Amino acid sequence: MATRRFVGIDLGGTNIKGGVVDEDRCVLSHLSIPTEAEHGPDPVIELMAELVDRVIDQAGLSKTDIEAVGIGSPGSMSHTRGIIIKPPNLPGWENVPLRDRIKDKTGLPTTLENDANAAAWGEFWAGAGRGTRHMVMFTLGTGVGGGIITDGRLLRGHFDNGAELGHTIIQPGGRPCGCGQKGCLEAYASASYTARRATEAVQAGESSSLADVLAQQDELTSEDVVNAAVQGDALATRIFDETCHYLAVACVNMQHATNPERIVLAGGMIAAGEDALLKPIREKAAEMTWQAADDLPEIMFASLGNDAGFIGAAGAAWLAREEGEI
Amino acid sequence: MATRRFVGIDLGGTNIKGGVVDEDRCVLSHLSIPTEAEHGPDPVIELMAELVDRVIDQAGLSKTDIEAVGIGSPGSMSHTRGIIIKPPNLPGWENVPLRDRIKDKTGLPTTLENDANAAAWGEFWAGAGRGTRHMVMFTLGTGVGGGIITDGRLLRGHFDNGAELGHTIIQPGGRPCGCGQKGCLEAYASASYTARRATEAVQAGESSSLADVLAQQDELTSEDVVNAAVQGDALATRIFDETCHYLAVACVNMQHATNPERIVLAGGMIAAGEDALLKPIREKAAEMTWQAADDLPEIMFASLGNDAGFIGAAGAAWLAREEGEI
Repeated sequence: MATRRFVGIDLGGTNIKGGVVDEDRCVLSHLSIPTEAEHGPDPVIELMAELVDRVIDQAGLSKTDIEAVGIGSPGSMSHTRGIIIKPPNLPGWENVPLRDRIKDKTGLPTTLENDANAAAWGEFWAGAGRGTRHMVMFTLGTGVGGGIITDGRLLRGHFDNGAELGHTIIQPGGRPCGCGQKGCLEAYASASYTARRATEAVQAGESSSLADVLAQQDELTSEDVVNAAVQGDALATRIFDETCHYLAVACVNMQHATNPERIVLAGGMIAAGEDALLKPIREKAAEMTWQAADDLPEIMFASLGNDAGFIGAAGAAWLAREEGEI
Repeated sequence: MATRRFVGIDLGGTNIKGGVVDEDRCVLSHLSIPTEAEHGPDPVIELMAELVDRVIDQAGLSKTDIEAVGIGSPGSMSHTRGIIIKPPNLPGWENVPLRDRIKDKTGLPTTLENDANAAAWGEFWAGAGRGTRHMVMFTLGTGVGGGIITDGRLLRGHFDNGAELGHTIIQPGGRPCGCGQKGCLEAYASASYTARRATEAVQAGESSSLADVLAQQDELTSEDVVNAAVQGDALATRIFDETCHYLAVACVNMQHATNPERIVLAGGMIAAGEDALLKPIREKAAEMTWQAADDLPEIMFASLGNDAGFIGAAGAAWLAREEGEI
């Protein structure tokens, strides 16, 4: 029997990535093109359909070799209804039936998945979570995203809004989060809030080498904080240590909630590296939780980088076919 | 086709409850007998097998009318292996293959489930969660237990240790919990820790009508706190309000984690009633979370009371047959 092949498309506010992935998780082709989101949905949907053709062509295949298409899209969206509802980084998109429009243009069965879920499914299916059946992913970027796989299935929740792990509250009554809640994980541990906490401390007059950096830039980045911490700056060390602390709390909480075998950390912030980020989180989580427990999840970095989105979208198409959904 | 019938057994440290439940969720018989746990596993297993016979007989049925047996047992235990590992409230039980011993004695297919999961499954299958596919349960008793159903399936986790929601950390670095962690939900919001927080406040010299109660008893109960709060005592009101606050945090966190349609509160503490417990939790959760969200779960009380355990154990037997596990 021929190897089954899927196209995955990762729709972002800046770029659209796509590729052909087979059931053995081999990437047969991949491309990235600018989204040009400012022109609204119609031309972007046209670009996406063209990208499907191009990656099939690049892989030396034809459409009849492809079993299905998966799309990862920013929220808010509905997997069940196949629509994009109103994503903040795709202006002018409102209640767009993206699944059916791509299906009509390509003539292929199509599924639509939340981009964070698609990336988590990518790592589970083809990356750092491969071989497990229970995985949790935290994506550490501008925000903190999440993904949960339990017993080999993607957890979407009743409202298609599960695994919003950046908005679990880890400090009741704490820092205001952009989402309107207080004390969210994201309001402490995302790249942007890590940088913001450092900026606030410098502006409050704490002594730090970051004061010089801030004098030359409008604002600090989380890379600035990591670099200063690596060079021994006390304030930067404290700020980044707090980030690791709150991420460790979140790991312990998911250990007790969905009890995964593996917790995967993804996103731009993992560039901080094992010594600065992974080891401290592992140590803090181990100190914080049950000492005699034999249910500690492994905590590790994601392995697919920016490709997790389109690989996971292809994997979502595989999943939807397995489950007879499309 | 005949209605399918199941026996559920809820093994507790004090009592063993059992009954026959059919696939329509009707309870056809039920009995409760003392566990006499002090005699060790063998006589208790004998009692459990006799209880199976007795509830079948009480329902006017014979063994051939029963499709399977489900057992809810205290942890630590393993559903997968069917064994009781070492539960604190069953002294002398260690690595007992309870599932197979009951199966051998009754001649019926048997499944073993964690008691908290069985109770949650009971409410989902036959009680307050019926009709949903995504539910979370908090059981508020001496401790805080948990149960998660996602997409119609019981979430057990990789280590069979999922939904230990009482030990999610809601106040990092906070009160020491009996489990060894700090800042667990249980260390604030269980019946016993609610009473303990009140006791500590009285002993620290805060003025309260609870001082008189404490003078006559060794320790306060959560009922004492609720009663004093209902009568307008300021300290008791504050302590119970904090309990509701932390439970609301836990509800918001599970809203974002597994995104249930319904959150069910069970256990002895729900005797506090709607006005003292349910309404404040609902209000606090609504204030605390996304204002424009349309993914707020309903929060409600459990409906099966102490019968949730054996009904859920029977439901677990139904589930294990549905999934072809036994």
